[in-house]
Amino acid sequence: MAKYINDGTIELDRGVSVYSCAAAVGRMESDGPLGNCFDYAAEGAELGLTTWEKAESTFQQYAFDIALRKAKLIKEDISFIFAGDLLNQCTGSAYGLRDTDIPFFGLYGACSTMAESLALASLFADMRIGEFFAAVTSSHFCSAERQFRFPINYGGVRPPTAQWTATGAGCCITSAAEKAPFVKRITVGKITDMGIKDANNMGAAMAGAAYDTINRHLINTKTTPQDYDAIYTGDLGQVGTDLLKELFRRDGVQIENIHKDCGLMLYDREKQDVHAGGSGCGCSASVLCGHILPMIAEGKLHRVLFAATGALMSPTIVQQGESIPGISHLVEISDRQEG
Amino acid sequence: MAKYINDGTIELDRGVSVYSCAAAVGRMESDGPLGNCFDYAAEGAELGLTTWEKAESTFQQYAFDIALRKAKLIKEDISFIFAGDLLNQCTGSAYGLRDTDIPFFGLYGACSTMAESLALASLFADMRIGEFFAAVTSSHFCSAERQFRFPINYGGVRPPTAQWTATGAGCCITSAAEKAPFVKRITVGKITDMGIKDANNMGAAMAGAAYDTINRHLINTKTTPQDYDAIYTGDLGQVGTDLLKELFRRDGVQIENIHKDCGLMLYDREKQDVHAGGSGCGCSASVLCGHILPMIAEGKLHRVLFAATGALMSPTIVQQGESIPGISHLVEISDRQEG
Repeated sequence: MAKYINDGTIELDRGVSVYSCAAAVGRMESDGPLGNCFDYAAEGAELGLTTWEKAESTFQQYAFDIALRKAKLIKEDISFIFAGDLLNQCTGSAYGLRDTDIPFFGLYGACSTMAESLALASLFADMRIGEFFAAVTSSHFCSAERQFRFPINYGGVRPPTAQWTATGAGCCITSAAEKAPFVKRITVGKITDMGIKDANNMGAAMAGAAYDTINRHLINTKTTPQDYDAIYTGDLGQVGTDLLKELFRRDGVQIENIHKDCGLMLYDREKQDVHAGGSGCGCSASVLCGHILPMIAEGKLHRVLFAATGALMSPTIVQQGESIPGISHLVEISDRQEG
Repeated sequence: MAKYINDGTIELDRGVSVYSCAAAVGRMESDGPLGNCFDYAAEGAELGLTTWEKAESTFQQYAFDIALRKAKLIKEDISFIFAGDLLNQCTGSAYGLRDTDIPFFGLYGACSTMAESLALASLFADMRIGEFFAAVTSSHFCSAERQFRFPINYGGVRPPTAQWTATGAGCCITSAAEKAPFVKRITVGKITDMGIKDANNMGAAMAGAAYDTINRHLINTKTTPQDYDAIYTGDLGQVGTDLLKELFRRDGVQIENIHKDCGLMLYDREKQDVHAGGSGCGCSASVLCGHILPMIAEGKLHRVLFAATGALMSPTIVQQGESIPGISHLVEISDRQEG
C-alpha cells in the first residue's frame, strides 16, 4: 500500500502498472526525431475542425480512445479520469472528455499535468479504488499562442529563449497489474519561484522546480542519478536544461549523461524552427506515452524518473509584473515490480 | 481504508476528520445573513493591494493561515496541499500558496473546487500518506468579472439569471483524527452538459451535474434525502435550485425541505443586489468552512451532503458557441465516526 516517505515522496508497493498508453500528435511532432513512435499523427493541426480549441480537445479524445483500444478496454472500464491542460479553465479536458460519463478529477499543473495526473491515477490504482484509471493531458500550439501570447495570425516575432508549444495529447491508463511499466514512486512538486518575469523564458522559470523535485526524490529515496537509466524533464528546453545542470553541478551532482528533456527530444532544432525547444502539456505527455513507456515495456530502459515541468503563470499576472513560479511533479517508472 | 463502492462513490472508514477549517471573506459576504460566522472579514475587496488578483491570492493565504492557527499547526505540519480557483491558469492558488513550500496538487473544478480538494485531502488522510492535508480555494468578484465577463469599470448590466461571484476563500485541514466533523463518503462528479449556452445562467448549467452526483450518491449508498439533515449545493442560485428540485421531482424524490444552496445562503437577496444568488469557489467554500462544518462540530447538524457545483466554461469557448458543461463533486460529512 502507498507509503509516505518524506517531504512529498510516496512509495507504491502493491504493484501499479501503466496498463496502456497512447500519444496523438500534430504534423510538426510527427516530422520530428520521434515521429515514428506516436499512435496517431495528424495531417495538420486543425483536424478539420473550426477552432484550435476543438482540435485540442479532439487530440485528447484520440489519445484516450486509442489507449483504451490498445488495452482492449471500453470507457465503462475506467473508474476515474484525471485530466487537465493549459487552456483557460482547462477546457481542453472538459470538452475533450465531456462525453465519457466517467467520474472526473480536473487538474491544473500547467505543463506538469502528465506527471500530476499519472501520479494520482497511480495512487488510486494502488488504493484499488476502482480498477482502471486514466491520466490525460494535451496542448496545442495555436490555442496556446492565442491565449498566452498573440494570435498566430499576428505573426509576432519570438525571442531565442521562447519555446514551441507541442500539438498533441497523451493518455496513460493505470491499473493494479503485473505488467511493465510499473509506477514505483512519486514525488509531488512544490511551487518554486526563481524570480523570472519573462513569459518567453519559461524554461528558466521551471528549472528551479525541476531541480527541487528531482533533488528531493534522490534524497528521499536515497538514490543517485546513476541509479537511473535516464532522468527526463518535461519541457525545460535548452535554456532550462543548461540551468538545471548548473544547479546540480553546484551540489557536485553529475546529471550530464543521464538527463534528457522531452522538449529537446520532440523536435530537431537544426531543421525545425522551435527556438529553445518544445513545451506544453502535450510535449512531455507525447514523449512519455509514445517513447519512454514503450521503451520500458520492451526492456530497453529499466528505471527512469519522469519529472514533468510547469510554469504557473497567466498573461494577466505577468502583465502585473509578477514573477513566474514553476512546479515539477515526478513519477519513477521501472520495468520491474520489485526492487 | 478507502473502499470503492460504485460509479464514482468512495467510502472512507478509517476515520478522517476535518481537523480545522477557516473562511476569509469580503465586505458584502460579511454583510450577509451568515456574516457573523466567518473567521476573517475584510473591510473592502482589495485588501490594500494593487490588483484584484493579488487580493484573491491573499484571501487564500488568510484562510490557510487561520486554519493552521486554529489547529495550533505550522505550515511544516502539512504534507500536501490541494488547491484551485477560477482565475486563468489557477493563479489565485499558485500565487496565494507560492511561499508555503508544501507539496502542491493544483486542481481545476471551477466552483466545485472546495469539494474536489476536500475529497482528495480526505482520501490522502485515509491513506495516511502524511499527517495533515490542506484543501484550499477562493474566488473574487472583481477578478472573476474581469476574466469571465467585463471589467467592473465597464458597468455592464447583468440579467436576472446572473449570479454574484463571492469574494472569499476557504480552507479545510484534514487528518486521521477522532474529532468531528468526519468525512465519510465521497462521490466524484462527472462532466454533465445540459446544453445551456448562456454564460449568465450558470445555475442552470450546473443543476444537471448536481442532480447526477447527488442521485448517484443516494443510489450508491442506498440512502434517501431524508437520511440527511441537509443537502447543500454549491452555487446553483435560484434558477439552478428550481431546476434541481424539478429534476428530483420527476423521479418522485422530495428534496424540498432538505436541500439548501450556499449561493442562496450567503447573501440576503432582498437587501443585496446579487440577482440569482452567489457563486464562485469562495461561495461554497466560505459557507462550508464558516457555517456548515462548525454546525456539525457543535452537534447542531449530524449528517449532511456537500455537493459543490462548477461550470466548466471559458469565455473563449462560449464565444465559439459551445454549451457549458457542469460538474459537481460531493462529500458526505457526519458528526459521528461510526455508522
